Amino acid sequence: MNGLMMDWPLVIPQILRRAAQFFPEKAIVSRWGDGTRHRMTYADLEGRVHRLMNALRGLGIQPGDRVATCAWNHHRHLELYFAVPSLGAVLHTINFRLSHEQLRYIINHAQDRLIFVDRSVAGTLAALETDLPAVEKFIVMDDRGPEPAALPRSTMDYEELLAGASERAEFPPLREEMAAGLCYTSATTGDPKGVLYSHRSTFLHAMAGCMVDGGAMSEREVALPAVPMFHVNAWGMPYSCTMTGATQVFPGSGVIGQPLAELLEAERVTCAAGVPTIWTLLYQHLKEKRYDLSRLHTILVGGSAASRALMENYARDFGIRVLHAWGMTETSPIGTMSRLKRALEDSPEERQLEARLKQGIPVVGVEAKLLGEQGEDLPWDGEHVGELAVRGPWIASSYYNNPQAGAAFTADGWFRTGDMASIDRLGYVKLTDRKKDLIKRKGEWISSVDMENAVQGHPGVLEAAVVARPDEVCDEVAAVLVVTRDDPNHPVAAQEILDLLSRKFAKWQLPLPEDIHFVAALPKTGVGKIDKKVLRKMLAQPPAN
Amino acid sequence: MNGLMMDWPLVIPQILRRAAQFFPEKAIVSRWGDGTRHRMTYADLEGRVHRLMNALRGLGIQPGDRVATCAWNHHRHLELYFAVPSLGAVLHTINFRLSHEQLRYIINHAQDRLIFVDRSVAGTLAALETDLPAVEKFIVMDDRGPEPAALPRSTMDYEELLAGASERAEFPPLREEMAAGLCYTSATTGDPKGVLYSHRSTFLHAMAGCMVDGGAMSEREVALPAVPMFHVNAWGMPYSCTMTGATQVFPGSGVIGQPLAELLEAERVTCAAGVPTIWTLLYQHLKEKRYDLSRLHTILVGGSAASRALMENYARDFGIRVLHAWGMTETSPIGTMSRLKRALEDSPEERQLEARLKQGIPVVGVEAKLLGEQGEDLPWDGEHVGELAVRGPWIASSYYNNPQAGAAFTADGWFRTGDMASIDRLGYVKLTDRKKDLIKRKGEWISSVDMENAVQGHPGVLEAAVVARPDEVCDEVAAVLVVTRDDPNHPVAAQEILDLLSRKFAKWQLPLPEDIHFVAALPKTGVGKIDKKVLRKMLAQPPAN
Repeated sequence: MNGLMMDWPLVIPQILRRAAQFFPEKAIVSRWGDGTRHRMTYADLEGRVHRLMNALRGLGIQPGDRVATCAWNHHRHLELYFAVPSLGAVLHTINFRLSHEQLRYIINHAQDRLIFVDRSVAGTLAALETDLPAVEKFIVMDDRGPEPAALPRSTMDYEELLAGASERAEFPPLREEMAAGLCYTSATTGDPKGVLYSHRSTFLHAMAGCMVDGGAMSEREVALPAVPMFHVNAWGMPYSCTMTGATQVFPGSGVIGQPLAELLEAERVTCAAGVPTIWTLLYQHLKEKRYDLSRLHTILVGGSAASRALMENYARDFGIRVLHAWGMTETSPIGTMSRLKRALEDSPEERQLEARLKQGIPVVGVEAKLLGEQGEDLPWDGEHVGELAVRGPWIASSYYNNPQAGAAFTADGWFRTGDMASIDRLGYVKLTDRKKDLIKRKGEWISSVDMENAVQGHPGVLEAAVVARPDEVCDEVAAVLVVTRDDPNHPVAAQEILDLLSRKFAKWQLPLPEDIHFVAALPKTGVGKIDKKVLRKMLAQPPAN
Repeated sequence: MNGLMMDWPLVIPQILRRAAQFFPEKAIVSRWGDGTRHRMTYADLEGRVHRLMNALRGLGIQPGDRVATCAWNHHRHLELYFAVPSLGAVLHTINFRLSHEQLRYIINHAQDRLIFVDRSVAGTLAALETDLPAVEKFIVMDDRGPEPAALPRSTMDYEELLAGASERAEFPPLREEMAAGLCYTSATTGDPKGVLYSHRSTFLHAMAGCMVDGGAMSEREVALPAVPMFHVNAWGMPYSCTMTGATQVFPGSGVIGQPLAELLEAERVTCAAGVPTIWTLLYQHLKEKRYDLSRLHTILVGGSAASRALMENYARDFGIRVLHAWGMTETSPIGTMSRLKRALEDSPEERQLEARLKQGIPVVGVEAKLLGEQGEDLPWDGEHVGELAVRGPWIASSYYNNPQAGAAFTADGWFRTGDMASIDRLGYVKLTDRKKDLIKRKGEWISSVDMENAVQGHPGVLEAAVVARPDEVCDEVAAVLVVTRDDPNHPVAAQEILDLLSRKFAKWQLPLPEDIHFVAALPKTGVGKIDKKVLRKMLAQPPAN
């Protein structure tokens, strides 16, 4: 009786075909490093993807080969998103902000045959070139950014490559289980670990990105991924936007503050996505200068937790909803999305905000559970805190060619996220901490995330981090690092921070006055998260006095 | 390199599991035949599905077996939607409005082992019982409707069956390609043909039902399927609602007019779905009496084309959007959805209406093309008319156990729909006619659908049908059948119909005055569509004078 429905594989070329057929006129906008903008349509995209496929074939790329990118967000990167998997090859998006050591490791581990690199970041690769024996060619994409100090030797120009390729490409048959994309986690310990996405996982994840209770992408949106395309496929936006024919606005190279505000206004962007820092900085700028962002209804925030202030500020001052989501490289990344349940529709605003500040409800396709210290299931009462484990069609079942790094994958098919969380009766997941970021004082836990959120409630605080400082008596105590806004109207004193915390935390949880540090900036990882590993190392050293 | 994403099959039990975990408190409401309402939650649903699975196992149901329903829309039918496929068995939803001859054929063709039947319709089966050798038991569900004339002999009561079953069921492992559902088309020629849905097709179709540009179901909706659950799985709503945790309101037995209005108001329904007739009748009632339908934002219309009047009336008088969709039993059914493209956002209202009156853009997962008379691809210019062919993961590749009826399935993997259509440059599909409903006058085509829409523009017309009448000179000519509203403010004369048509049609296309017939009612098929086969037969006979 089987097989009476068509065997239509969930593969990436279908996503582009739909856009080119039903939305050929829709726009793809890219902002270059010099501030100029490039415009093309989905019809153009299809044509260029065909040429790129032929060019890649000409360079000898075979199904299964890895083709890497070191690139910002722009249309050429989008072309690679489709051309490489459409050949059955694997698109490896490299986070070029990683250390040289890490870059060398992942490029060699992935055995990338080609690297497509933005001109402005090619200098990084030039320095590494001799250590990358598998790489045959570097194809340079002119992003009109700053001149690099040097270029790798064996380079080609992207546009010349395309110009020399023929117009119509043959699409090989693909099975949906075939590998399509590769992304390495920016591990804070040990070597980076690769996550290999399949055509099926990418397609289903893109569908989730278009579901009302998922990413809610639609043809009517003008979408701007401020999250880099080397960061878990820009959270899948390029695929869900193309799938549904949305207008795409690519901000190019790490655009923040004023140029971001200008781009959002000029292209009448309706939804955007990125880590909290981007939106904190943008908010400061928006308070200084007036822009027409009336079309912008939603900012999707992930990567780290959005603060209450961020949500309140955008809602109050600009009528923009900050939508909280959670995910990881290992989860493609969409895991949860914090949309307001109908049951909370008529609740007081404070109750609504409380729910929206949680990471949200797992989207369709993602199962979740909470594991206790012995691996037992914990109840969903909003109180019990355990390790969040997830399961689903776009969640990794192992790391790429790395059988040693398998501890996170349970024998019964779950992925242990390393995130500590509670789940309440309405199904909202609330992350309390990375497992390794919890502070354990005399055997009792202190949540660094809760304390950071509390400190960020001070109007004079721009950013804050809370980490464990080793202590002979208590094992660990909380240490707070604060970056102030330098706003004369809102000075910040250590005592104010302590007062603020004492309203929300037990006495034994509070940091000592000398553990409140004012710093000029916080160290960040390659993906823009606060690097707590560095902070912990700093604090572990005895003060130099 | 394969298999690095989890192998998580797209199967129906996952849909229910999600609802029970994240939306246990959400409501499922059923209206019984006596007007009372039954309420339960998704947590209750899960419990009852477990019991039902155990009960079915107790009756000897094995994977692959067919289990049938003859039932209206209510929670017990929903329980069967989950319990039967969760066992690996196949849920066969029977349209009990078919003729006895057709019912006998499909039940025997499907070899149903059990039939779950609403008490109010059990009389139909009692009359057929001796002709159904494969059926072992009839399980009667008390829907508080009218007493049946007789019951089949070997009956059991549904609630007693559940009460006797144990609480927790084991879920067998399922592959997503396994059959899950079976539905027969109400063929207008030849025997009914069965379409077999898989777990995969049902799951993906439900996801499409939750996509913004698809069915847009979400947790926040209160959804009422007025389309029967025996009609292509109520267009997939029970699955997409459960998948996303929407509140479901089941109207029971063919509720129309006043009781439908009362139910929509009482349950604060936000979206509903059904054939145009239901909404035409409801509109008449809403004009007579005031209801608070302020929550109702969208009525999804399919099955046959919505008229301009229907769309305009609901929008103008109640601010309710009539959303046009197209599908067939063979397409699960969602094929196209007529949402307004961004490009039309600032267009004049008339232009927007023109687009929304088309059947719309194929949803994600559905590919389309237009075939000319020689099977060639026709251009998408809004002018060329050809047969619509579709392809996708929830479209049939053959009929169930019926290799003879394979003409609609092309060798290269497309399904020929039998619908004549154009596709415009924006990708909107517009059905012009069923292939067999076109009128061919002296070798030139006349669209019966266009002519019906024109006639329905007369304010005194309730319903209209246009069919071919055989003619010795012209081969075929158009004949118009009109049901008037009997509204003294809007009398209808044949000449007015002709005047109306002459504004939109060429002279040679117009019907003769004697081909305009006023009738009390139009014959309908088992699924509520106008039965043109019957009309053609009537008109083919020489007038009895």
